Amino acid sequence: MLQEPTAKTLAATPAASAVLALLLTEGPLSRVEMARRLDLSSAAVTKAARPLLDAGYLHELASERTAPGSGRPVSPLAVTAEREYFVGVKVTTDDLVDEIVGVLCDLRAQVRVSVRRPLPDRSPEAVVVELAALVDELLDAGPDYRARTRNLGIAISGDVDRARGLVRLSARFGWRDVPIGQLAAEATGLSVVVENDVKALTVAEHWFGEGVGTDSFALVTVGAGIGCGIVVDGRLLTGGFGVAGEIGHICVDPDGAPCRCGNQGCVETVATTGAILAAARAESGEADMTFGRAVERARAGDEAVKKVFAKAGTAIGLAVAAMVNIAGPERIVVSGEGLDTYDLFEERIWASFAAHAFGAAAQAPVFIRPLPFEEWARGAAAVSLRALFPQVRTHHARALTHRA
Amino acid sequence: MLQEPTAKTLAATPAASAVLALLLTEGPLSRVEMARRLDLSSAAVTKAARPLLDAGYLHELASERTAPGSGRPVSPLAVTAEREYFVGVKVTTDDLVDEIVGVLCDLRAQVRVSVRRPLPDRSPEAVVVELAALVDELLDAGPDYRARTRNLGIAISGDVDRARGLVRLSARFGWRDVPIGQLAAEATGLSVVVENDVKALTVAEHWFGEGVGTDSFALVTVGAGIGCGIVVDGRLLTGGFGVAGEIGHICVDPDGAPCRCGNQGCVETVATTGAILAAARAESGEADMTFGRAVERARAGDEAVKKVFAKAGTAIGLAVAAMVNIAGPERIVVSGEGLDTYDLFEERIWASFAAHAFGAAAQAPVFIRPLPFEEWARGAAAVSLRALFPQVRTHHARALTHRA
Repeated sequence: MLQEPTAKTLAATPAASAVLALLLTEGPLSRVEMARRLDLSSAAVTKAARPLLDAGYLHELASERTAPGSGRPVSPLAVTAEREYFVGVKVTTDDLVDEIVGVLCDLRAQVRVSVRRPLPDRSPEAVVVELAALVDELLDAGPDYRARTRNLGIAISGDVDRARGLVRLSARFGWRDVPIGQLAAEATGLSVVVENDVKALTVAEHWFGEGVGTDSFALVTVGAGIGCGIVVDGRLLTGGFGVAGEIGHICVDPDGAPCRCGNQGCVETVATTGAILAAARAESGEADMTFGRAVERARAGDEAVKKVFAKAGTAIGLAVAAMVNIAGPERIVVSGEGLDTYDLFEERIWASFAAHAFGAAAQAPVFIRPLPFEEWARGAAAVSLRALFPQVRTHHARALTHRA
Repeated sequence: MLQEPTAKTLAATPAASAVLALLLTEGPLSRVEMARRLDLSSAAVTKAARPLLDAGYLHELASERTAPGSGRPVSPLAVTAEREYFVGVKVTTDDLVDEIVGVLCDLRAQVRVSVRRPLPDRSPEAVVVELAALVDELLDAGPDYRARTRNLGIAISGDVDRARGLVRLSARFGWRDVPIGQLAAEATGLSVVVENDVKALTVAEHWFGEGVGTDSFALVTVGAGIGCGIVVDGRLLTGGFGVAGEIGHICVDPDGAPCRCGNQGCVETVATTGAILAAARAESGEADMTFGRAVERARAGDEAVKKVFAKAGTAIGLAVAAMVNIAGPERIVVSGEGLDTYDLFEERIWASFAAHAFGAAAQAPVFIRPLPFEEWARGAAAVSLRALFPQVRTHHARALTHRA
């Protein structure tokens, strides 16, 4: 029996992989334009696109114009977004609720349906049971979702060994060496990729968000911790010792508060939600103030609480500047874990970034915006999609010229 | 007339380029071992090596043993180091002397001869005249040097546009938009590559020094400024806006002294030779103290001056840790511009690095050692050699697997 082709099998050659990746992220494009961007011959692009067209992953758009000179019609190629789907799940916990958030995305990483489920507890067993039920719910939400879905991405905070599908350490869940990839594969029957949540969101934004068209890109997340994913030359930095993008532990005040890392005055001691809340309680004298209440107070003009948010924004801007001065990304997105409080510190982030960015690095655009948990789940789906293109460094011209 | 082959023409195909680069940096190696590391067939390696052997760039070593199974003798291949030479020049200036330092290196980047010449002034014209005379002196120092040298690398501090051979800005020389590459090519008849001096030294150390065998590597230089070159995935980071590795402007003291960059309390305000000297003068009350005298005083046990060096070491360690936390290099070399004062702060650098490195990043080895100006000139020569291998990302196995 013939196996039906999948995006994975179709993207197995470098040329097909490059063509599909380029159309996924920047299509529709004509064959001539793709040939130019990928530094391939038009014949090579046509050959690579053929099986993708035959299998229904691509389609030709109606001719818009004729090619200059030849008079032949130009029919741009486009990805058939609904040909295959990808599920992404963000496993999350905060002071209020433990839950899993799942989305089903198409080939263009557009969310088709999303679902949230509360977690009864934080044990791996409970998470896998809920995860399997959530995946079922997503796959049942459309007539062809189940038949056309083979890949699941899981995003979770902590130290993740992606190659082994292992959560080595997740302080927030109390997990150590949990083979969540294998457990989830057994429970769902899907191919599973597990990734650190910040890295997953970085990959999604690089391929399908603000990072499109860049070789280097960074995403900073602010919430219970300060995270940062950095893409250099089309690939996510992983660090020689598994550490990279750790901007939360840049020292902003040598005489500052002790940090969980053992140092003093790290960015995390002033800019996490926990640090902001602690400082707001201390400033206001309200020992049982909630984060929501702190936000209200600041928005209502409480100078002491406003100052706490401003201090956090200044520290974040400094950390972003240090990262940009060192790693040199072309664009930066600063986001958070579902919080929508950017009005309280965005001006400070920009001002502090501008003050500390060195020379021309200050030109790097910094986008500040909230990303709800569904976007993080989409990041997990994007990682499972991105994993089908291991050879593609980036999604535009240089993808293939490195192989020239 | 047949053109004699050069390393450049011989390394024109991906396989030949990868074979030569591997042997340059890690040879001698057998064909079988090279095939394994490059993920090529033995036949492909043999085919790629043939023209290099014929042209005298490689030679076979005597058989050491027979191949297991086949009983055929294994003859490792080695680079014939003296087949081609490369000239490197470091253009340098400090409070005491302006000079150019030149070396002639072989294919293994071993220095064969070195020369220094003082500069009568800092004008581009004067530098080119002295540079041409220095290159002549180097090429005349051996019977076959002139015939076998085609490439010259120039290293200089400042903002260098390598692609155009242009020094955009060198504050220390007062140069702006000086086409030193073209001027030097006209004056010497050699192919010229111009590179920022820290980047040049980083490339040399990555290919021929502590960086051999790593995918990611960083070099930090301490002197009149604090510089840093970072290699990620086999390539030097250049930064989306031309800024990368700027660790000198990480803030170590928000209330610190004003920095030339416009901020306060940057690493450079406490750790450059100028900053150390100013602080030592202030601490000791000796307004005309020289840097050499400050070193003497610290070595003789003067607590106040020792403290100045210790503070500098602490700031350098913190900056190195921030860089490692963000970029994640596997190994780090901390060096200087010919100064030999590491005994005065190396312990502080290590202690501060260990305190600020995040988690497993503290395992990254930090080597601290002086590099005389001849090593910087060797860096320039290595850049002109490295430039012959634009497709090679790194010098070991992954060089070709990215193209697989």
